[in-house]
Amino acid sequence: MPGIVTVLSDFGTSDGFVAAMKGVVLSIAPDAKIVDATHDIAPGDVEAAAFVLSQYWQLYPAGAVHLAVVDPGVGSGRRALAVEADGRYLAAPDNGLLTRVLADSDAWCAFEITEPRYTRPDPSSTFHGRDIFAPAAAHLAAGVDPSALGPAVKEPVTLPIEPPSRDETTLQGRVAHIDRFGNLISDLPGDWVEGDWRFEVRGREVGALRRTYADVATGELVTVIGSLGTVEVAVRDGSAAKRIGAARGDPVIGRLIPG
Amino acid sequence: MPGIVTVLSDFGTSDGFVAAMKGVVLSIAPDAKIVDATHDIAPGDVEAAAFVLSQYWQLYPAGAVHLAVVDPGVGSGRRALAVEADGRYLAAPDNGLLTRVLADSDAWCAFEITEPRYTRPDPSSTFHGRDIFAPAAAHLAAGVDPSALGPAVKEPVTLPIEPPSRDETTLQGRVAHIDRFGNLISDLPGDWVEGDWRFEVRGREVGALRRTYADVATGELVTVIGSLGTVEVAVRDGSAAKRIGAARGDPVIGRLIPG
Amino acid sequence: MPGIVTVLSDFGTSDGFVAAMKGVVLSIAPDAKIVDATHDIAPGDVEAAAFVLSQYWQLYPAGAVHLAVVDPGVGSGRRALAVEADGRYLAAPDNGLLTRVLADSDAWCAFEITEPRYTRPDPSSTFHGRDIFAPAAAHLAAGVDPSALGPAVKEPVTLPIEPPSRDETTLQGRVAHIDRFGNLISDLPGDWVEGDWRFEVRGREVGALRRTYADVATGELVTVIGSLGTVEVAVRDGSAAKRIGAARGDPVIGRLIPG
Repeated sequence: MPGIVTVLSDFGTSDGFVAAMKGVVLSIAPDAKIVDATHDIAPGDVEAAAFVLSQYWQLYPAGAVHLAVVDPGVGSGRRALAVEADGRYLAAPDNGLLTRVLADSDAWCAFEITEPRYTRPDPSSTFHGRDIFAPAAAHLAAGVDPSALGPAVKEPVTLPIEPPSRDETTLQGRVAHIDRFGNLISDLPGDWVEGDWRFEVRGREVGALRRTYADVATGELVTVIGSLGTVEVAVRDGSAAKRIGAARGDPVIGRLIPG
Repeated sequence: MPGIVTVLSDFGTSDGFVAAMKGVVLSIAPDAKIVDATHDIAPGDVEAAAFVLSQYWQLYPAGAVHLAVVDPGVGSGRRALAVEADGRYLAAPDNGLLTRVLADSDAWCAFEITEPRYTRPDPSSTFHGRDIFAPAAAHLAAGVDPSALGPAVKEPVTLPIEPPSRDETTLQGRVAHIDRFGNLISDLPGDWVEGDWRFEVRGREVGALRRTYADVATGELVTVIGSLGTVEVAVRDGSAAKRIGAARGDPVIGRLIPG
Repeated sequence: MPGIVTVLSDFGTSDGFVAAMKGVVLSIAPDAKIVDATHDIAPGDVEAAAFVLSQYWQLYPAGAVHLAVVDPGVGSGRRALAVEADGRYLAAPDNGLLTRVLADSDAWCAFEITEPRYTRPDPSSTFHGRDIFAPAAAHLAAGVDPSALGPAVKEPVTLPIEPPSRDETTLQGRVAHIDRFGNLISDLPGDWVEGDWRFEVRGREVGALRRTYADVATGELVTVIGSLGTVEVAVRDGSAAKRIGAARGDPVIGRLIPG
C-alpha cells in the first residue's frame, strides 16, 4: 500500500507553494498518495489549524502521514517536529499546531527534525514547508522511523486551550471553531448534556438541543450535537456566526432547566 | 486499476470536513484514487451541484465512483442513495443532486443506503458525508455492488428543471448555470441553432453566434456554443453575469432572422 | 511508477471544469497520479501562471507532466504546445505561459499538438483544457513521446519579461509576483546582494536584508531572500502589497551603502 501524505497549510491555492511541497514529497517518495486536506487556513492561524487537523487525523489508516504547515515563525528558533501518534505520523512546526493531536492521542512520541539527510540541502529561511517538512513527511511515508530524524522532544509547544467546565446546573465552554457555514463549534462534550439544557452564546439564548439542522425552519437558530460530538450552534441555511456576531473563544453556556 | 473516487461538496476547504471524508474513504479502500472535483459549491445549492456534476461524471472511466455531498437536509428523513448509471457509481443524498445524472444516463438503478455494515457505526445526524456517503463510496470503489447497500429506489427526488422549448422562429431557454468567469451557460442545445439566430438574455440583446470568445474584442459580449454543447453568453476577459445582471433561471431567447 | 500529472488552471473550483479535465486524463491514463497545483490563477492572468509554474515544475521527478491551462485565447489561432524540458513534460497553450519554464531549463523542445488521435474527437472551441491539453497530458504521462503529438515549434510565444540589471552601487528589478500573503517577490537574485544594500519599492524604503520574517516585530516591513532565491519584501503577519500599495511590475531598487 502506498504511503498516504495529507497536506494542510495556510498557503492558499493561488501560488505555487503547495505544488512545490507536493513535488518535493513525490520526488522523494514517488509512490506516495497525496491528499489535500486544506490550504485555506487563515494566514498564520495556528489555533484554527490545530482544530482542523483534529477533525481528520485519526480517520486515516495507520501509517498515514499528516504534513501540516502553518508557520508564522519560519526561520526563527522554533523547532521542526516529526511525531508518531496512535500509529499515524505528523510533520509540523513546533508552534502548537499539534496541540489537539497530542491531547487526543493515547500514545505519542516527538522528535526534532535535525538530520540533514532527511531535509533538502541548504534549506531556505522562509519556506520550511518545502525544504524541511515536505521531505521529512516523504521519508516518513517511505518508512523511515521518526526517531531517525533527530533527537526526542519531550515537551512540544502547546496552545493554552482552556478546557470546558461544569457543575450540576451549569456548563461553561467556548466557541472552539467557526466553520465555513458559520456554525459555532463549541468544546462542550455531547455526553455532558443529558437532561433539559438550554444554551447561550455571548449571552444570547440559542435554545435547547435538537437532533439536526433540519429540525428548525430555514433561518432559525438551532443547537445540536455536531459531527465532532460537541455542542454546536447553527442557523439553518445561514450563518450563526453572523447572526450572533460570535468569534472563536466566545463563551458557550449551558443551563439545566429543573425537571 | 485502483478505484477512482471523485469528491464534490459544499464544505469549502477551510475546515477539516473534506479531509475527514477522504480519510474515511481511504481507511476502507486504501487503494482508492481520490480526485477532488469541487468543494466550493455555494452552501446548500443543490441545483448548482447537480449542474456541476453533470459537467464531468461521464468523463471518468467505467467503475469510477462519484461522491457528491450537498446536503442541507442532513439528518432529516431524506434518503441516502447509491446509484449505478452508465457504468459509473454515485453516492449522494436523495435531494435532487442527481437530477441531471439520471436524466443524462442511458440506464441507471438506485438504492437506498441502509445497510449498517457499509456505513460508519453510530452515524452523526449532522455529517452524513463522513458517516454514510464516504463509506458507501469507498465500498463501491472496493467492488461492492450498489444493490448490497439497501433496497431499490424507484423514484429518486428530482429538481423541477424546465426543459427549453422552441418553435420555428423562437427558442426559449434559461440560464442553467453561471460559471466562475461569469459566463451564462444556457440550456439551449447547440444543434437547435442552425441558421441566423439572435439571442437575448433578460431582454438584453447579446447578438448572433460566434465561434469562440476571442472572436470579439476584450470587454465585448459574445455568444457561443459552450463546452457543454449549449448556447453560452460571455464577455471576453470579463463577466457576462455582471454586465447583464443575470441570475440562474433568467430567460435566454433565440429569434430567427428571416434569411 | 505511475505517471504524475499536475494541473494548473484559472478555472477556479466552483464549477466542473477542473473535474472534467481530470476525468479526461484518467480515462486515457487510468494509472496517472493527478496532483492539483492551483486552479486559482486570476482569470486570464498568463503572467501569474508563468510565475507560479516556475515555483514548482522542476521539483517534480523526471517524467512528470505539468498540465497548465490559462487560455484567454482559446479557440483562436494560438497554438497548443507539448514541451519536454529538463526531463519533465508540459502541455499548455502557446501564449507565454511557459516563458519561465523555457528560460529556466537547460534543454527543451516544443511541439504543436495537432495529431487528432491524441486529442478528444471534435474539440470544442471554448474548452481546450478538456479537449486538447488534458488528453495530450495523459498521453505524455502514458509514455507517448511529445514529438508524436505534432510538428516541432522553434519559437514558442514568450512574455516580454524585462531582466533585472545592476551596476556597482545600484540594483534595478521589479515585483515579479505578489503571493497570497501579500509578499512582494522581486526578480533581484539573492546572490547579487552581498554587502550592505538597502532596498526600496515604489520609492518607499524597505530597509536592509534580514534573514527571515520573524526577525522583525509583527506588523513591520522586512526584506529577505525569499524561497525562490530572490529579494522579497514582506510585512510580518501582514501584507506588504497593501502596506506599500504595490502591484506586479513595480520597481524594486537596491542601493549599496558605502562601507
